[in-house]
Amino acid sequence: MDDSPADLIIDLNPLPDEIDDRLRAQLTFIAEADRLKTILRASGLAAVERRENDAEHSWHLALMVLLLAEYANEPIDVGHAMKLVIIHDMVEIYAGDSPVFDPAAVVGQVEREVAAAERLFPLLPEDQAREIRALWDEFEAAETPEARFCKGIDRLEPMLLNWLNRGGTWRMPGATESKIRGREAGVVAASTTLGKATDAIVRNGIANGWIRPDPAPGSDSDPDA
Amino acid sequence: MDDSPADLIIDLNPLPDEIDDRLRAQLTFIAEADRLKTILRASGLAAVERRENDAEHSWHLALMVLLLAEYANEPIDVGHAMKLVIIHDMVEIYAGDSPVFDPAAVVGQVEREVAAAERLFPLLPEDQAREIRALWDEFEAAETPEARFCKGIDRLEPMLLNWLNRGGTWRMPGATESKIRGREAGVVAASTTLGKATDAIVRNGIANGWIRPDPAPGSDSDPDA
Ligand SMILES: [Ca+2]
Repeated sequence: MDDSPADLIIDLNPLPDEIDDRLRAQLTFIAEADRLKTILRASGLAAVERRENDAEHSWHLALMVLLLAEYANEPIDVGHAMKLVIIHDMVEIYAGDSPVFDPAAVVGQVEREVAAAERLFPLLPEDQAREIRALWDEFEAAETPEARFCKGIDRLEPMLLNWLNRGGTWRMPGATESKIRGREAGVVAASTTLGKATDAIVRNGIANGWIRPDPAPGSDSDPDA
Repeated sequence: MDDSPADLIIDLNPLPDEIDDRLRAQLTFIAEADRLKTILRASGLAAVERRENDAEHSWHLALMVLLLAEYANEPIDVGHAMKLVIIHDMVEIYAGDSPVFDPAAVVGQVEREVAAAERLFPLLPEDQAREIRALWDEFEAAETPEARFCKGIDRLEPMLLNWLNRGGTWRMPGATESKIRGREAGVVAASTTLGKATDAIVRNGIANGWIRPDPAPGSDSDPDA
């Protein structure tokens, strides 16, 4: 869990009485959403030297979905896919980011995120809480064409940032070629074309020494040893 | 124009040869988009004390469109509206933000943004450059139901942040009640219900002294004198 105060953002200022309960609940959620801008990811930006936050990342995914939909392995509804990526990381408002190459960070991630969903989405009116929760569940399950494509784009974006940064989080202790290839598999499942481009980028990263080869099994630097 | 180097972000790292021209153009544009995360707006966040950037703002608008579409004065296609807000500020990568209450900043804004559009969108393959430019033109013209609604949401988001910040950019020298009411008109055109809520928030801001009444015409503090 993060160390943000338990109070809601909207408690900074009580909403005027004229606003009815339904819109009041929606504005409460929209104000709480401001917190996503404070959740830092492990990846750095390409444009300047600082870490990316979840709101920026979610915007970048929506743009990529719009521009790269033509490469999806299965036909997708672009508008629906954009909804999935806009919502996909909102639970991190309370659960925090879990950097994929940090074995300690991912322990208990699912439980933390489900608890966060049960705290966050019910701020909305009941029908909308169900609708938005369903979008998050759909993304997580990756069983629809849109969710599979979005999962792949969610893998591709940090790989592109790492590669532009000549390493980025690929230099983290837990990141080895096979772990990075595991991330690449999500891109391949979304799109053969984007998977091939990702493979070219990963091979380029290996050739440049930005990606470490796997340690010999059982060696001191084997993270699974 | 901003003072960023003329080079493209993608020039940080040449894309591997295996990537064909079409995808190369798309990835060039997607890398350049990283710059939107560095364009600071006048508005501050509610969650922490710093200014919002355009990528965060665009994500927040997409979320608001998704959650508040039921209040649109005319039926809208939510997926299409989300595309409009994801794209709407991208020209600011080169044109910079033009704070609405700063009379000097808005001089030449249209020309700067059109020049930026002519530099940015042609990074994409030709068909997609036309498609994305058309989304930006549609948003700017505000002649479709989706564009009118998105323009209203683009007005509402900073008003909500200002109000949560107990003033925010409403305290800027150029911001007076009538200028702020002019922004409110964009929300009313998008949605009667959201317009009423905005009116309640503005009246609350006036009552709390966060919004200045208009100066007497011709007085020293009349910005139009
Ligand atoms: Ca703008």
